[in-house]
Amino acid sequence: MSELRFDPIHQEWVTVAAKRMQRPVTDAASACPFCPAQDEARSELPRSDYGVAVFDNQFPSFGVAGGTGADPLTVPGSAGYRRARGFGAAEVVVYSPRHEADLGTLPFAAVRLLVDAWADRTEVLSRRSDVACVFVFENRGASIGQTIDHPHGQIYAYPFLPTRMRSEYHSLWQHRRMEGSCLICDLLARDAADARRMVDQAPGWRAVVPFAPRFPFEMHLVPETHRGSLVVMDTRERDGLATLLGRSIRRYDRLWGQRMEYMMCIYQQPHECQPTNLWHLHLAFYPLRRAADKLKYLAGSESGAGAFLLDATPEEMARHLMEAGG
Amino acid sequence: MSELRFDPIHQEWVTVAAKRMQRPVTDAASACPFCPAQDEARSELPRSDYGVAVFDNQFPSFGVAGGTGADPLTVPGSAGYRRARGFGAAEVVVYSPRHEADLGTLPFAAVRLLVDAWADRTEVLSRRSDVACVFVFENRGASIGQTIDHPHGQIYAYPFLPTRMRSEYHSLWQHRRMEGSCLICDLLARDAADARRMVDQAPGWRAVVPFAPRFPFEMHLVPETHRGSLVVMDTRERDGLATLLGRSIRRYDRLWGQRMEYMMCIYQQPHECQPTNLWHLHLAFYPLRRAADKLKYLAGSESGAGAFLLDATPEEMARHLMEAGG
Repeated sequence: MSELRFDPIHQEWVTVAAKRMQRPVTDAASACPFCPAQDEARSELPRSDYGVAVFDNQFPSFGVAGGTGADPLTVPGSAGYRRARGFGAAEVVVYSPRHEADLGTLPFAAVRLLVDAWADRTEVLSRRSDVACVFVFENRGASIGQTIDHPHGQIYAYPFLPTRMRSEYHSLWQHRRMEGSCLICDLLARDAADARRMVDQAPGWRAVVPFAPRFPFEMHLVPETHRGSLVVMDTRERDGLATLLGRSIRRYDRLWGQRMEYMMCIYQQPHECQPTNLWHLHLAFYPLRRAADKLKYLAGSESGAGAFLLDATPEEMARHLMEAGG
Repeated sequence: MSELRFDPIHQEWVTVAAKRMQRPVTDAASACPFCPAQDEARSELPRSDYGVAVFDNQFPSFGVAGGTGADPLTVPGSAGYRRARGFGAAEVVVYSPRHEADLGTLPFAAVRLLVDAWADRTEVLSRRSDVACVFVFENRGASIGQTIDHPHGQIYAYPFLPTRMRSEYHSLWQHRRMEGSCLICDLLARDAADARRMVDQAPGWRAVVPFAPRFPFEMHLVPETHRGSLVVMDTRERDGLATLLGRSIRRYDRLWGQRMEYMMCIYQQPHECQPTNLWHLHLAFYPLRRAADKLKYLAGSESGAGAFLLDATPEEMARHLMEAGG
């Protein structure tokens, strides 16, 4: 049972999930909990006749279904501090029964199925009254803390609006009020005119290194049409995303001829943005490597002050990504 | 020459310092650039007759003195994006000529001298018109990216208010407007009444695990009296800080009988808070280890969404830190 606590200094929620301490660390294929093992007791997924598998995280950060009627986040906690039960959801998305499968090497149909699975789970979880925001992500590589080697991602359904979703929401709202248009649409139009940071495209999508990224070789996949989430994307757009996803990951892996460690995050509209159509969906890749033999660390300036430093210009990064090919 | 770029989505400055890519990685004592080596060409600090040494970072993130009159951060950049020269300062603070010295093992007088050095540099850098905020920090341990093993910290003089300084500033401002008091003063009074998270104290100071920390075993050192920065602290308070600093670091190292990796950050008043006396100085330790054999990673939820997860309750963390002893 997890608990949410509100930090009054930075006005953000922190999740305390004490049970997670016991989660296993393993990368040996023989003991993989996601492989269809002979010994069923050791596998969370004994079957192998599936495309994409989605199930509840056994060590969830969020997991208590809400539905008490009142919004628990508005209830003051003890001694003036605010706390709440850690309701919401934490799901695991396994990309394939094959341990050595990968978003960069899976066939198009498998990645396309994954896009549909993301959209389906987003639709189902977004309907719940205790869910403020559905966050699809993947942590790839041991240096980002991936504890199970078998290719998989995760879905968190947060009961609150996380800090970076909130700041983006604020900017989108402010821009629409001041300019009457969508900030992401406007940035995309501006970036399309500057070929130096435009890395790739597929039907309905662009892949761009942003003007002011936080991570080395950071790349955003942005739909050309204003879309709030994967749920409302049509077949052509889902096809385009599956194509661009595979190419983007191969591009990263070819950059230095080694498997790139990254976080992949999908920013979809928060629950309260649904009526306003304010949000513009996008995906982001945050690589953790600034050179073949150099990791990027989130140290004092980044983690403590919130000020990120880059070793190369975004234009240089984009050029290297273009040259790597997808 | 570094460059600042403004991210319009999260409304924060990012620093591009392309020259930093060439900075050396070394941890062998024989090649240490901070040791008083025989071969002077290989040392940045050939002398050994000093207590604390402060000098400009040879691979600075910020380093161009400002003073053009106009504030460059207000000048729009090309194509609607905002950019600025990376003015400000980046300094290195070496704690001792001894390679094996450490904030936890240095004698009191040496740590006390370091506190004075921090205060002096804060005073000098804060006077500059191009400096918005002076940030003193230490990255300790290879897993947080410490590239030179010789004990040292850093000082960044940012030309902008970093994101987490800005959110704290906003909360302090809001609390004073709504409650007429200092948020940090009020939190400290509240925490002092709950012994479970109050880890340690020294004259004028408290060491507390906050109600909603982001990092495992996170601990804040907070002055009991409302103080904006180290500059205005009297002798008793500087003595108390030096005492508490040494004890806190020994506490971390005793927790599991191994050297704790952490970030230490000092939050001092931004330039524009000086006339209002709004700010309340505090130090924070952000450890990177959640168990003797388990690192804390800043992965998708933390880095992508800004939602932090903890494996243990703050009250449990505080109890372990108390039991470790300082």
